[in-house]
Amino acid sequence: MLTDMPKNRARLLVSCQDRAGIVSAVSTFLFQYDGNIVQSDQYSTDPEGGMFFMRIEFDINLEKTSFLALKKAFQEIASPLNLEWSMTLAHQKKRMAIFVSKEDHCLMELLWKWKSGELYVDIPLVISNHSDHQKSVEAYGIPFYHIPVTKQTKIEAEQEAIDLLKQNQIDFIVLARYMQILSPLFVQTFPYQIINIHHSFLPAFIGANPYAKAFERGVKLIGATAHYVTNDLDEGPIIEQDVLRVNHKYTSSDLRIAGRHIERIALSRAVQWHTSDQIIVHQNKTVIFS
Amino acid sequence: MLTDMPKNRARLLVSCQDRAGIVSAVSTFLFQYDGNIVQSDQYSTDPEGGMFFMRIEFDINLEKTSFLALKKAFQEIASPLNLEWSMTLAHQKKRMAIFVSKEDHCLMELLWKWKSGELYVDIPLVISNHSDHQKSVEAYGIPFYHIPVTKQTKIEAEQEAIDLLKQNQIDFIVLARYMQILSPLFVQTFPYQIINIHHSFLPAFIGANPYAKAFERGVKLIGATAHYVTNDLDEGPIIEQDVLRVNHKYTSSDLRIAGRHIERIALSRAVQWHTSDQIIVHQNKTVIFS
Amino acid sequence: MLTDMPKNRARLLVSCQDRAGIVSAVSTFLFQYDGNIVQSDQYSTDPEGGMFFMRIEFDINLEKTSFLALKKAFQEIASPLNLEWSMTLAHQKKRMAIFVSKEDHCLMELLWKWKSGELYVDIPLVISNHSDHQKSVEAYGIPFYHIPVTKQTKIEAEQEAIDLLKQNQIDFIVLARYMQILSPLFVQTFPYQIINIHHSFLPAFIGANPYAKAFERGVKLIGATAHYVTNDLDEGPIIEQDVLRVNHKYTSSDLRIAGRHIERIALSRAVQWHTSDQIIVHQNKTVIFS
Amino acid sequence: MLTDMPKNRARLLVSCQDRAGIVSAVSTFLFQYDGNIVQSDQYSTDPEGGMFFMRIEFDINLEKTSFLALKKAFQEIASPLNLEWSMTLAHQKKRMAIFVSKEDHCLMELLWKWKSGELYVDIPLVISNHSDHQKSVEAYGIPFYHIPVTKQTKIEAEQEAIDLLKQNQIDFIVLARYMQILSPLFVQTFPYQIINIHHSFLPAFIGANPYAKAFERGVKLIGATAHYVTNDLDEGPIIEQDVLRVNHKYTSSDLRIAGRHIERIALSRAVQWHTSDQIIVHQNKTVIFS
Repeated sequence: MLTDMPKNRARLLVSCQDRAGIVSAVSTFLFQYDGNIVQSDQYSTDPEGGMFFMRIEFDINLEKTSFLALKKAFQEIASPLNLEWSMTLAHQKKRMAIFVSKEDHCLMELLWKWKSGELYVDIPLVISNHSDHQKSVEAYGIPFYHIPVTKQTKIEAEQEAIDLLKQNQIDFIVLARYMQILSPLFVQTFPYQIINIHHSFLPAFIGANPYAKAFERGVKLIGATAHYVTNDLDEGPIIEQDVLRVNHKYTSSDLRIAGRHIERIALSRAVQWHTSDQIIVHQNKTVIFS
Repeated sequence: MLTDMPKNRARLLVSCQDRAGIVSAVSTFLFQYDGNIVQSDQYSTDPEGGMFFMRIEFDINLEKTSFLALKKAFQEIASPLNLEWSMTLAHQKKRMAIFVSKEDHCLMELLWKWKSGELYVDIPLVISNHSDHQKSVEAYGIPFYHIPVTKQTKIEAEQEAIDLLKQNQIDFIVLARYMQILSPLFVQTFPYQIINIHHSFLPAFIGANPYAKAFERGVKLIGATAHYVTNDLDEGPIIEQDVLRVNHKYTSSDLRIAGRHIERIALSRAVQWHTSDQIIVHQNKTVIFS
Repeated sequence: MLTDMPKNRARLLVSCQDRAGIVSAVSTFLFQYDGNIVQSDQYSTDPEGGMFFMRIEFDINLEKTSFLALKKAFQEIASPLNLEWSMTLAHQKKRMAIFVSKEDHCLMELLWKWKSGELYVDIPLVISNHSDHQKSVEAYGIPFYHIPVTKQTKIEAEQEAIDLLKQNQIDFIVLARYMQILSPLFVQTFPYQIINIHHSFLPAFIGANPYAKAFERGVKLIGATAHYVTNDLDEGPIIEQDVLRVNHKYTSSDLRIAGRHIERIALSRAVQWHTSDQIIVHQNKTVIFS
Repeated sequence: MLTDMPKNRARLLVSCQDRAGIVSAVSTFLFQYDGNIVQSDQYSTDPEGGMFFMRIEFDINLEKTSFLALKKAFQEIASPLNLEWSMTLAHQKKRMAIFVSKEDHCLMELLWKWKSGELYVDIPLVISNHSDHQKSVEAYGIPFYHIPVTKQTKIEAEQEAIDLLKQNQIDFIVLARYMQILSPLFVQTFPYQIINIHHSFLPAFIGANPYAKAFERGVKLIGATAHYVTNDLDEGPIIEQDVLRVNHKYTSSDLRIAGRHIERIALSRAVQWHTSDQIIVHQNKTVIFS
């Protein structure tokens, strides 16, 4: 997991059309630059013309080669192989913004995990369309922005949020039970950088009031789904799902309370994988290197 | 569970509009007839005008009062209270028919559980629209009927099946991956006495090819749902559900294979609860006394 | 669960030697006092001379009969039947003390659940042998007492705690990762009123450093166990257990971090059941009415 | 999983002291021999002087290079790097022997999975110290050997089994609830090639009658553990574990019946991983590439 992230630990994500020789080319490159591979996972959808995905964690000698120089050099082998790739330093924390509405269980989980060192991120701000959680957030020393949203002010409100996110150089956004649908403009500003927690086992119970629907249908398990936000409501790439056993005694309100557990767990895992560059999105699905 | 079912063990299921005094009336009745309550569960949806559901297991002195006499006497207290009820002797095995098509994992699970004494039923026959599993079924000493079904012969085929079921005094039917949709006529002949296993976490992926759909959507858990069959496809009362963790490496075919585990488990539990009178159906939902 | 606890909702727990007529006697009693049974569970270990356990939730008319009068009247039918019993009003919150040391995840979980209304208790105080969490606790408006413990001061420290608990009329105590072994004197002062969370799947890895031991053994699941404290270390009646899948990549420290999830969940459930009078202890085991 | 195993798919397992350049050397070797890496996982316990483990699945051109030639060539790069390694062809089925006593659920699970194509092995024989399951096994067309074992005949019985295993060129052995303790001689004849299913969540309830012990202790989950057999009873490297929720209503016999589910699941997974070369044993722990 995270504690004591070494300064010289780097991560490489690669996706491309499958072909022979990619692992060899990449690992030889890293070896030439004194990289020591600590962990690697590689997966092909189909050896005959499918996709190839790879994640490598490696240690490098930053005194000999700067990270910028390494990336530049890698681009030279990546281009002829048509690799899509990204390379990050593990100890450089991503900057995460949290959006929240009235329910605070997901927010508090993330804040607590951040404070206790379980979540390796910076949290420059929390944005909410309600002011309820201002005090709790500020108690953690994190700026809280109350941006009310109405039908009439939605565009301006979103612009205000975007401005704040840019000023704060936010890398990704977590919708921790934020009960507003984001506009296409907002979504495309942060492509696959917005994580939402939906309180059902998608694709069951898309849309509003999933617990009420689950109660109606009489399901024996309730679920939660963390996914990247796209312009199709609750249809983005699924990152993580979890379920909990319930029974006929649960009222709709009981389901809602019980579901908080799995919402927190599924969202936490998704956020952790995102912060550790463990996710590649491909065609509305996720490859998770866990 | 089941081994050594006592001869004098009886079960009572009750459902009615909630009102004070029901438990008192019923338990006092049983006490008067020397009944000893071994286990009881009782549940109200809402004490103010909701529904009341109860299951009681009790031991009786059959030498003093015959079971028929007991039921007759109970009817006298049940009528004024407007109770819907059923009373059974635990050691009287229900008669179960299994319907199967090509996939045999649910069939074999039920047969093995029956043979090993885990499932307390009689299995007078297995019916299939294919002949593939004739030999396996007959090896268990159970008659196998091959009733092919085509669009043209569907009505006759169903009638043939109904005749066989009636001749064999079947109490309930298990669709152990039977890939034919039953007609309304068939369904209403056995109301809430047909259990189906659907290979998804309903209401996600209703209809055909749920594993292919699950693969397309990129879910992180696959599910199975055992439910009573009604005339709305995959919409009947859910009895049991289970899920299994999967990941991006699973092909559609891998999902299908992995799913067999949970199909077997969810169906087995549902059948066991049905055989032990642990289920009350109310308004397209089930109350499970487990 | 809990929201909007009705003022006239009562709970009765009964345990005794099994015999015919108990349900009848109790339910008739309640009926005579205008009680309406909302939920009841009853269980016998063995109809031939075993134990009988029962939990009843019922609504009463407190304007007609006071709760004290009801309990007095019940004693009269309980005595001849040799019933052990307790009766409580659901809306009367139990008073819970939390003990904590350095790790705060269980503490914060309980405080958050209490604040959000998920946990129906009063928390008059938190006691710790360290001062680390003083600020976090006081932010919730709850008094925090720092009582350091050394080998030399253990007896005095415990006495100081006992005095505080009595002054605050504490009903039960939760050891939320409190890393001190309580003396027999302390334990017998609160019999079956102290809940501990042990960070392993008991009886595996009794004692100190269970995660280090789990790492050594190479287990594929880690566990957590909530149990009542007795004088035999980690041997008290188990209330709840949960597990989490891990793999060879987890270091001992990763196991510790991952385990926090299930510690919080198992402890929360145990505390909730205790607060709702859903637990009967019998011969070092628990009957959970859930 | 398995269906349609390609003829030219190979697998390589490597373990060694960690050092830079191993992935590069191995992947470059494979590239030179026209190997296409389909899947690879690699893991280091500690980049500073820890252990390195790797599993690679790759497709090769067997018409250009024979498998024997490939292995010979690989030995030349493996020797200077001090690699421990094994290379197999995926379509070459391992030869598995099953040992069983009276309980047949694990046996029947393995046979059914084998017959339905889920388990990619040959099963040349089943050995039992009882004759109960002769007919069931032979119905699958598999030879059954009844080798009774008493204290007096244990050595001869084991020798008879060893002879049969050698004659049948057995690769590995599954103890599918075989209730005899194997001698050190037997164990060392098949090092880390004997898989046992223990009916508890090890290290809890080592030894005989784990379900009776679990009942005594009042656990809320029961477990099953598949592990390699060593000379320390129930202390060998754990391959897989699973658990099932139970409650106070379960008798010791109920626990035994319920446990069969998870015994079958944990054992099946362990066997599948073993057959697919997904396991490396290191210092009494397993690395599972799944």
